[in-house]
Amino acid sequence: MMEAETTTGLKIKKLMNAGISSTGVAFPDKGRWVHNEEIHELIHGKNWQQAMALKGWDTGYVKDKLGYDKRYWTHAPGEPFDHSELTSADLMEIASMQALERAKLSPSQIDLFIAVTVTSPKYTNSMGPYVGGRLGIKAPAIEIKTGCASCLFAMVMAYQFIQSGAQHVLIAAGETPTKVTNRKTNLAYSVGDGGAAVIISKIDDKNRGLEVGWLNSEGSFSGMLGSGGSLPPNKIDVEADAYYMEIGSDADDFISNAWRQIPAVLLKDGNYKPKDITALIPHQVNKKVMANIREASGIPAERTVDLISEYGNCGSASVLIALDHAITTGMVKENDLAMLAVVGGGISWGGLLVRV
Amino acid sequence: MMEAETTTGLKIKKLMNAGISSTGVAFPDKGRWVHNEEIHELIHGKNWQQAMALKGWDTGYVKDKLGYDKRYWTHAPGEPFDHSELTSADLMEIASMQALERAKLSPSQIDLFIAVTVTSPKYTNSMGPYVGGRLGIKAPAIEIKTGCASCLFAMVMAYQFIQSGAQHVLIAAGETPTKVTNRKTNLAYSVGDGGAAVIISKIDDKNRGLEVGWLNSEGSFSGMLGSGGSLPPNKIDVEADAYYMEIGSDADDFISNAWRQIPAVLLKDGNYKPKDITALIPHQVNKKVMANIREASGIPAERTVDLISEYGNCGSASVLIALDHAITTGMVKENDLAMLAVVGGGISWGGLLVRV
Repeated sequence: MMEAETTTGLKIKKLMNAGISSTGVAFPDKGRWVHNEEIHELIHGKNWQQAMALKGWDTGYVKDKLGYDKRYWTHAPGEPFDHSELTSADLMEIASMQALERAKLSPSQIDLFIAVTVTSPKYTNSMGPYVGGRLGIKAPAIEIKTGCASCLFAMVMAYQFIQSGAQHVLIAAGETPTKVTNRKTNLAYSVGDGGAAVIISKIDDKNRGLEVGWLNSEGSFSGMLGSGGSLPPNKIDVEADAYYMEIGSDADDFISNAWRQIPAVLLKDGNYKPKDITALIPHQVNKKVMANIREASGIPAERTVDLISEYGNCGSASVLIALDHAITTGMVKENDLAMLAVVGGGISWGGLLVRV
Repeated sequence: MMEAETTTGLKIKKLMNAGISSTGVAFPDKGRWVHNEEIHELIHGKNWQQAMALKGWDTGYVKDKLGYDKRYWTHAPGEPFDHSELTSADLMEIASMQALERAKLSPSQIDLFIAVTVTSPKYTNSMGPYVGGRLGIKAPAIEIKTGCASCLFAMVMAYQFIQSGAQHVLIAAGETPTKVTNRKTNLAYSVGDGGAAVIISKIDDKNRGLEVGWLNSEGSFSGMLGSGGSLPPNKIDVEADAYYMEIGSDADDFISNAWRQIPAVLLKDGNYKPKDITALIPHQVNKKVMANIREASGIPAERTVDLISEYGNCGSASVLIALDHAITTGMVKENDLAMLAVVGGGISWGGLLVRV
């Protein structure tokens, strides 16, 4: 079941006296929910059934093999940029408001705000103060980025800042990958937009907190899901349609191994067995990746959050959307042990064992 | 001399057993050093002396009042984007190599890499693994951003990760603000490009490390030095020349106060007097700001790093360039107490008292 432990990466142990106060998500009405059939039509035209049949493409593959059914979009891939559409900052703001409301906290009670996105709506601005300012937060605010694993890095930082004296840390992720997705690739089926937030708070309970964390990156594959064009935004790259995310496949084996290492490292370092884990909360990539991490962890499907058919892959927001689901459905309760796992662009990856 | 202490922001105390192993900078030959006269000509044309005289502009103002003399440019503000020019990633890479060499460390010995920039050369990519991959780093890598104060946030994170078990943390900042500077504004005189790096390492000495840190942000002014246009890069904003950094002046009083609060908070919380500080290492904005922080801190000019005439304002890299200067010139040595202070875009600001 488990693989040999890797020796690279950074392991973090026992950042306790911290609990998850609340979570929030953002899928506001201004965007819309899109089913596979609409994407078939976007790619293949009105007669998509005929067109796909002629190419010998199975119209059910996306649902049956990859697991995608619907997803939330603020933008249709390939359509021209529109300033009136929702941004990742909007999604961070809305998700944060839900988390604040659920925790019964005012923005002024937040001691640190970490904004997470790989699809920022601004160039030189940091989404930390940009979104923090909209929320009325009066505290240090920062933006961090390392692909879909960003929220796990942010959570480790949150637990560390709580050790250093912060009372409440708000993390908000917002993603709009649809705006940099080429509709002529399969990414059009996988990408979903969305926002999510979590508040982690200092508590007087040494048994709750981050039990084990493992973070790692391998920059040899940093082209994967990178944007081809250069910044600052420039005419040459805009005219060449060069800002679409690039798909790489060189890293497939590396990624698959990274997924399998995460539960092995966490269970070994935490001295736990699969049965001790209340819920496995992975980054939502596709059905195959979900099967891989489930098998590697030994945690059964009924204890794994699987929202792929609902939301697709929402980038860095995905693991927090899954955490929100686990908590709001009662799947994970206070004092339960949750395993969070992400492998994403960068490649950056990691896992957390959190006593919620 | 000192102002009333503010009550907002996050204070961090005593993250010890950590020392600054080395620093590095990057101003490679591919860029060039630019004097005020060249910028006069860029803005006012070949007959700049006549043109400025007609407008009643003092040609000596930039040097005498603002303090700028020369600065390093990878790009001339207002010129078209050129893919062959140096990027902020290049500057981070070169500065990192110098820091690694000086510390006699190989990239594989780095346990965490923090990339810092507000002028990234890529959209969805994180400069963490992007630059880390070029360097051959095999460790978690992340990009962070909160204006010119980013490196102080990164240093606090570095000291925290060392508490959590990291042996060596590399921070690299690279900035190319010239690429988003409108040559028709005074920013053309102030912006400099550049890179800098620092390695902070776990050591067996409880007297060395971060004695006091104070971090804060105020997002009400997040437009200042933000980029007007939206991301992803799009035709409308490119054609409207909308990606230049915007200058705001609403925040002048707020910024001036923030500068004055930093030494007051640090000296009080650290229980130190100005005479205890070996060197004041501020973000390099201009002559007026330098006078403000010197006066507020009570630390005399001879113990303050002032490189404004040499480099201009290099964004987030500026404070690390100043730290490198302090260390390589012998102004600050092991066990000395350095005060780092930055107020920048966001607005994010902060200060550190570091026992080097």
